[in-house]
Amino acid sequence: MKDDAVIILSEKELRSYVKLDEQVIAQVEQGFAALEAGQATVPPIMMLPVPDKDGEVDIKSAFIKGLPGMAIKIASGFFHNNEIGLPSQSGQMLVISAETGFLQAVLLDNGYLTQVRTAAAGAIAAKYLAPRNVDTVGVFGCGVQARYQMEALFLVRPFKKIYMYSIDSDERKAAFVDDMTKGLKVEVVSAEIGEEVAAHSGIIVTTTPARKGYFKPEWVRPGMHITSMGSDSEDKQELLPEVFRGADIIACDLKSQCFRLGELRSAVAADIVTDETPVQELGAIIHGRQSGRIDDDQVTICDLTGVGVQDTMIALMAYDIARKKNAGIRVQR
Amino acid sequence: MKDDAVIILSEKELRSYVKLDEQVIAQVEQGFAALEAGQATVPPIMMLPVPDKDGEVDIKSAFIKGLPGMAIKIASGFFHNNEIGLPSQSGQMLVISAETGFLQAVLLDNGYLTQVRTAAAGAIAAKYLAPRNVDTVGVFGCGVQARYQMEALFLVRPFKKIYMYSIDSDERKAAFVDDMTKGLKVEVVSAEIGEEVAAHSGIIVTTTPARKGYFKPEWVRPGMHITSMGSDSEDKQELLPEVFRGADIIACDLKSQCFRLGELRSAVAADIVTDETPVQELGAIIHGRQSGRIDDDQVTICDLTGVGVQDTMIALMAYDIARKKNAGIRVQR
Repeated sequence: MKDDAVIILSEKELRSYVKLDEQVIAQVEQGFAALEAGQATVPPIMMLPVPDKDGEVDIKSAFIKGLPGMAIKIASGFFHNNEIGLPSQSGQMLVISAETGFLQAVLLDNGYLTQVRTAAAGAIAAKYLAPRNVDTVGVFGCGVQARYQMEALFLVRPFKKIYMYSIDSDERKAAFVDDMTKGLKVEVVSAEIGEEVAAHSGIIVTTTPARKGYFKPEWVRPGMHITSMGSDSEDKQELLPEVFRGADIIACDLKSQCFRLGELRSAVAADIVTDETPVQELGAIIHGRQSGRIDDDQVTICDLTGVGVQDTMIALMAYDIARKKNAGIRVQR
Repeated sequence: MKDDAVIILSEKELRSYVKLDEQVIAQVEQGFAALEAGQATVPPIMMLPVPDKDGEVDIKSAFIKGLPGMAIKIASGFFHNNEIGLPSQSGQMLVISAETGFLQAVLLDNGYLTQVRTAAAGAIAAKYLAPRNVDTVGVFGCGVQARYQMEALFLVRPFKKIYMYSIDSDERKAAFVDDMTKGLKVEVVSAEIGEEVAAHSGIIVTTTPARKGYFKPEWVRPGMHITSMGSDSEDKQELLPEVFRGADIIACDLKSQCFRLGELRSAVAADIVTDETPVQELGAIIHGRQSGRIDDDQVTICDLTGVGVQDTMIALMAYDIARKKNAGIRVQR
């Protein structure tokens, strides 16, 4: 009478099956393409604030026509957790059958799949928007996502050197330098000031939870590509609004989200991006309906807030691998 | 470094721990009270339609201040499932800690907890709005929820007789009569026409998935209480809009939902309920800010669409019991 059992997968298993590689990037790219083709239904993010704990639970999802399932992602950020020795971020995804509506899998990934699919979007932005040949890239922030962004970027633009700037502790900055030097076998510089990063880098990735713009318009140089992925709520911002003034191409993952939660929010508030300003979604560029970079001197910016289609694509991939491997714990409903 | 393990609970376990009883009704009533007291955050329902399969996945949630956790409910209705021998409805709830944002439990209830908390809301509506002494009650529909509604109602208004009307098969109607006769030890009549139900019953509960109003205004009699819980989407309707014309008290679970998805939607569309019409939320009546029934001759209607606070209340109750009993499968994240 009922569908198959539900598969429960742990973070450890998911990490062993899903790696940040070309396949994941291609998978996430397909998600953006489906969005552009009108084949995806992406409801607005459901947000549950828990003010007492400086916390919030966000729920994202997307149904993509033609796929066997869809993901529902529950992601939490509770910023008092550090005080009790717990990570502030947590999360998991559910895979729901698009054939029957039945729950098929619970992916207890503790946010790992989100880290990967977010980095994949950064790689896709760079693939279409960054200059073809880049020796040096810059990153703001030295956290987990900064690492993933560099790894993903390396797959599409194999650079030789990273400049990193962060306001984090010396210890954490040193750990980033160490990890990236060993992991990617590139030179990594921990810059003293943000300007130093901008001065050397053809591609900039901003990955901080900043609540105030810090990336300055005077740092923008011809040919620079900026992917900004830190802002995903109304109170976050990394780029000063004037940065957008110098952009030849402004791209984003999903306009309806970015104008509300991303860098574009403050650019609009500052009246620098207006109704007249062309802003392209990544999907349109992937589809070729809008052009990506066509010239080495263009300045390009991509604002990423994270879209449910990314979650659905990576969750289905993980579920598919796990099923083929007969992995996880199978539980009867 | 991480929180406890995640507890996975099966439908069978949940059925053994959570019964439709006074405790559940009191629990759900507390949820409505919290809503009225401004202590609940109830985001709009996230809806994912899957048109190919005549399906939809709905996500409901609510954070209630002061409680240790919150539920996220994923409920599916896929109306082609019958063709492949599967139930059209499925669902499960997640319990998320309101302290840390971590996932604490996956309740694989297959919609059982929803059935129970929905019936509990019906009982709460009757408790405050139905006449004190009622011998005979009527129900439209003979499905699972019709049974639960009768059971819940019996706890607050111990009636002697049920009149049931349904357009379902004779077999299913006979099963309802049999189940209710044995379960509640009351007389059950399968009525030939809807009017017969209305003519005999002091309380009416409508529990059908009708897409067109069938309950007629001329069936309304002085003193009658109607709880209508079938409509929970823009295309459903059980009461003809004119039914509202005769009501002395119009109540509902959540105005913002009922005006969009419940019976009140068509009553507003027909201009029978207007901005001037007083409509009370159950929470306001529970709190005593609005009065419930004060007179045996009043006609009262309560429109129920199902609110996330009900899910959070019942899920936390289930989780609490399961934890104390050390039940379920414990999975490491």
